[in-house]
Amino acid sequence: MTSHGNPIGPTPRTKVRRLSARGSYDRDVIHAILDEALVCHVGFVDEDQPVVIPTIHVRIGDRVYLHGSNASRMLVRLREGVPACVTVTLLDGLVLARSAFHHSMNYRSVVIFGRAEETKGREKKMEVFEKLVEHVVPGRWADARRPSDEEINATTLVSLPITEVSAKIRCGPASDDEQDYSLPIWAGVIPLELRAAPPLADEKLASSIATPDYVTAYSRHRTKSPLVLGPVASRTAKG
Amino acid sequence: MTSHGNPIGPTPRTKVRRLSARGSYDRDVIHAILDEALVCHVGFVDEDQPVVIPTIHVRIGDRVYLHGSNASRMLVRLREGVPACVTVTLLDGLVLARSAFHHSMNYRSVVIFGRAEETKGREKKMEVFEKLVEHVVPGRWADARRPSDEEINATTLVSLPITEVSAKIRCGPASDDEQDYSLPIWAGVIPLELRAAPPLADEKLASSIATPDYVTAYSRHRTKSPLVLGPVASRTAKG
Repeated sequence: MTSHGNPIGPTPRTKVRRLSARGSYDRDVIHAILDEALVCHVGFVDEDQPVVIPTIHVRIGDRVYLHGSNASRMLVRLREGVPACVTVTLLDGLVLARSAFHHSMNYRSVVIFGRAEETKGREKKMEVFEKLVEHVVPGRWADARRPSDEEINATTLVSLPITEVSAKIRCGPASDDEQDYSLPIWAGVIPLELRAAPPLADEKLASSIATPDYVTAYSRHRTKSPLVLGPVASRTAKG
Repeated sequence: MTSHGNPIGPTPRTKVRRLSARGSYDRDVIHAILDEALVCHVGFVDEDQPVVIPTIHVRIGDRVYLHGSNASRMLVRLREGVPACVTVTLLDGLVLARSAFHHSMNYRSVVIFGRAEETKGREKKMEVFEKLVEHVVPGRWADARRPSDEEINATTLVSLPITEVSAKIRCGPASDDEQDYSLPIWAGVIPLELRAAPPLADEKLASSIATPDYVTAYSRHRTKSPLVLGPVASRTAKG
């Protein structure tokens, strides 16, 4: 997958080296992956030890925001402006090739290198918190009790620019060695999806409070782009 | 969640600092999370830049194995024995509290610190490749064309000990401030599951080749432990 349309970079550090046909520097592709993902994995170094922590993110324009308790080691380090890496991975399927060697996964991932900057100020932080809640559950912000000043102050908010960035995508069918296609071995893709199950209302919830539409309809928010399955999307399983 | 049964550590570096009630050092809990996850995120440092790369793993006993092309930057660095971090995250649900501040996710994660060692030798590598394929798709190894010597030699295989390790788990309902429970705001959990969709047979597959049972039944392999939903598991949504 090569750049097209709306490119960012690549820079020498973000150029996809391995299987570079899978690399993309297209802004729309990168943004779509960041927007679909519910968690990212943040890498930073603490006393010479790389640390990778899962956390929630939200993209706003050309920046990705992370937040957490003021006491979080990750936020303390990020706020200092240390080199960081934010990686997002969407798993789309298991690729069963005829050979064990060519087994793979279909996925879409984004890797961002950069240094974080802290976001300060009540209004600006509130704006980002709204986008963060809406990123995870669209429609929720209007219902939830808004953060108090105390809660805003207890939360550290930082962001990284989405400039040193690359996406890597594998989609479509298995790719076997030519001579293996004649082997009598099933091959194909098992698509994977992150799906919402029916919501579980809180035990302490008054029975008069109805489940909001944005909760019951949640699974519909995570619709996949045609990008996901590529050329195998229109095929069906053989019996 | 505290240690019980079959503990590993914690060491000073792996002690869960934030929300330590969520930490676990129980070997069975840690192994179950590693075994359910299809991908991990590997952190290492390359020219002062932390890098986080998604990849497939398999746990065998008290070690976690990673593999890739000999040309992979990640494998080249890991093989050198640099400090690394392997993180696995399973997303179990979205937690909608009454307050925006207490919104959260239910998840199970494992963080391993360590240095990798290379696994060499045809037989030992073949053993691990078998476990790797079986970890992702149980039943597949018996069908797939086995790796050739050339393929084995083209693949770097490393492992880290699962000794400096912690798990972190959030499960169960939202935890709101006492005074917020009386607010007329829906609260609850939207469970999330990674599900397999019906398999897509390869376009080049002979129609005489039936879809194996381990493919059609794939979704059943990812059954969740009772750990996942905690005390809300038995409740149902209110209308």
